[in-house]
Parts: sequence; C-alpha cells; structure tokens
Amino acid sequence: MEIKVLKDILSANEQIAGRNRQLLDSQGVFAVNLMSSPGAGKTSLILGTIRRLKGETRIGVIEGDVSSSLDAETIGKESVPVIQINTGGGCHLDANMLSNALNNMPLQDIELLLIENVGNLICPAEFALGEHKKVLISSIPEGDDKPFKYPLMFHKADAVLINKIDLLSYLKFDIQAFSQAVRGINEKVEIFQISCTTGQGIQEWVSWLLTQMSRR
Amino acid sequence: MEIKVLKDILSANEQIAGRNRQLLDSQGVFAVNLMSSPGAGKTSLILGTIRRLKGETRIGVIEGDVSSSLDAETIGKESVPVIQINTGGGCHLDANMLSNALNNMPLQDIELLLIENVGNLICPAEFALGEHKKVLISSIPEGDDKPFKYPLMFHKADAVLINKIDLLSYLKFDIQAFSQAVRGINEKVEIFQISCTTGQGIQEWVSWLLTQMSRR
Repeated sequence: MEIKVLKDILSANEQIAGRNRQLLDSQGVFAVNLMSSPGAGKTSLILGTIRRLKGETRIGVIEGDVSSSLDAETIGKESVPVIQINTGGGCHLDANMLSNALNNMPLQDIELLLIENVGNLICPAEFALGEHKKVLISSIPEGDDKPFKYPLMFHKADAVLINKIDLLSYLKFDIQAFSQAVRGINEKVEIFQISCTTGQGIQEWVSWLLTQMSRR
Repeated sequence: MEIKVLKDILSANEQIAGRNRQLLDSQGVFAVNLMSSPGAGKTSLILGTIRRLKGETRIGVIEGDVSSSLDAETIGKESVPVIQINTGGGCHLDANMLSNALNNMPLQDIELLLIENVGNLICPAEFALGEHKKVLISSIPEGDDKPFKYPLMFHKADAVLINKIDLLSYLKFDIQAFSQAVRGINEKVEIFQISCTTGQGIQEWVSWLLTQMSRR
C-alpha cells in the first residue's frame, strides 16, 4: 500500500511538472534544478553565476530549504527576483511547490531561473519540477565515493560540478576515479571542476549554461 | 490523506523502535544512531572509535546506505561484526530495517552497536530506530549555517560532533556562532570538535560515549 501511495504521488507530480514546463516555455524561461548535499555550494554557485551574467542574462532564483530564509536573503542582495520555499520538514522540492512559486515570480522579466533544491542527494532526484536541466554539485570534502552511494542522483544529472576544487591538495579525492564512476552511471553527463571561492571553472560552467539556453 | 499516511507510518515505526530498544536492553547492548550529510565523516568516525576501543569494548556496526556495500567492506576489515542495510532508494533507516538487521547481528557478542544512518540531514531525524543516543556529525566544509536550515536534526541530537576541524584554517566557519545556534535549538546537547584525520578530539568523544554506556 505504501508503494501504491508513492506511485500516485510521483505520477501526480509528473503531471504538475509538465504544466510548469509549459508555463516556463511559454514565457521563454530556461529553468535549472540545482541539487547537492547540504553545504556543497549551491548558493555560492548561484551567486557566482548571477555575478558572471550580470547585464547579460536576466536571472530569477527560487530557494528551497526545510527551514529559514537565509539563502533568499543572501541572493536578494544581488538585486534579482528571489522566492524562498520552506518545505516545513519535506526533504525535497516538488512540482506543486514550484508551481506556487512560479505564480509569484515575474517570469516576463527573466530568462534564466535557478532553482536551489533542498540539500539532499536522495529524494530531489525522484521529483521532477518542470526544469530544463538538472545540475548536481558534488564537493571535494564529501569524498569520491558518492556516485556509488547515490547513483540515481548521478544518473539523472545533465551536469556534475565538482566544487571546492581549491581544497584538493588538503583532501583525498581521486578526480579520475570519481569521473569514471560518474560516467559509468551516466555516459552523457558533462563534468566540470569548479571553485566558487577562487572562481576556477565558473566561466566554463556559465558557457555551458548559455549554450544549453541557446539550444532550447 | 498524505499526512494521515505519514502519521500512521511514524506511529508504526515508534512501536517497532520500542521493541528494538527492549531487545537491545535485554542483551546489554548500547546503540548509537550516527547521522550526518553525505561525506561528513560517519564511517571515519566509526573506524576511529573501533580503533580507540579495541580490546576494551566489543563493537558491532550496522551500515545504512541507499546503495552499495562500500562502507560495510571498509568496516569489515577491522574484524568487527558488520551488516549492510541498503534502503533501495529510501532516504533514511527505519525501525523495521534495524529490526531485520538485529536478527542477523550476534548481539550476545557485542556491547556497543554503532548504526550509520543514510547520509541525509532531514528524514533520519524523524525515524527512531530504538537507539539509546542520537549523534550528529556536522563538518566544517558544510558551513556554520546548518542548524538554521536543518533544525529538527540539531534538536534531536544528544551530541553534535564538529568534524574536519583540521580544515578550519582553510574555510570560513565560525565555531562560536555555530555552537550558539546549536544550543539555541537544543540547550542540553554536547558539542565536540574532532578530526577523524588527525585524531583531534576523538578521545573526548570516546570518553563521553563510555560514560553514556556506563550510565545506562
């Protein structure tokens, strides 16, 4: 019975995600679902992306957290439209939450919507939001074994960003073994090495993002 | 209706957790539920604890992961009884999973059971397993804002271990602000600063653990 309920929930979610996607497309908005463990660097990446694209691409941000509006306050200082979703205990965003947020986002004023999912490597992978691309941030301090432990997330990602690359010399992390494991699960995925602290790799990430937007 | 289902699940879980606790008590086993984000150092802490208590305390380990048996293989090299639970997509252990694992663990041969939950700061906090203590590992690279974002986990923890303290000089993390935030949510919690890499603080953690066991 529990499985039946879960199937119903996922199927209802897919329908709402489809409607979100139609709305985004009708408004010419490209949406990216950013996922990672807690503290891997989603908010820092959003900040870096906003700063790199300032004056070039109009960005809106949706922040998903169990609790607090810390991230929305941080992003709000960049003078972009931002909405905070608090899941109130829920461990992932779902399409209905995004639908409510989209109703409050000035879609006509933006071209790129960055959606920060709840910090969690498991359930966010199961719930489509209506996004055009799924991006996974995996950070050096988390270790290089994560693809084996959270395969669905790596399987679903269009791009994997290896963040905090500036910490590589202080920690054990085999980039080659990690990349091989990721490609073993998902052969078409793009992999970038980045540091939101030093700026390394941010230009490559932003170029990829702009290419995806132009191909839409 | 979804909320009703969730309540039923949590209530059934509490009942099974109560039975697990009775079984553990009847066998004189003290159980600790270790929780954290992915890659914060749960397995490394278990390894450090086993090595520190070798010849002194008989330890068993239960490893919880969505997928893979990597952690059980690592722990198995220490010659302690270990069981891997794969949740198959589930984002937390529950009391029923622990019950099944306890049936396969030689409880008469152990005094301390270390249970590594799935790497996730959200749902593991909601599902009691029958453990005597809940321990949360929060690592320096995750940032000092986690108590505000994942308050239930910090509220439920008996101890918070700040791991990877050796990385403090490379990263922005305000120990005092973090500790204050944690105590604001949970005034009785014990907080330790540790490094599983350098060994800093492991003796203090192990002493606390032995004291909790002796007070049982």
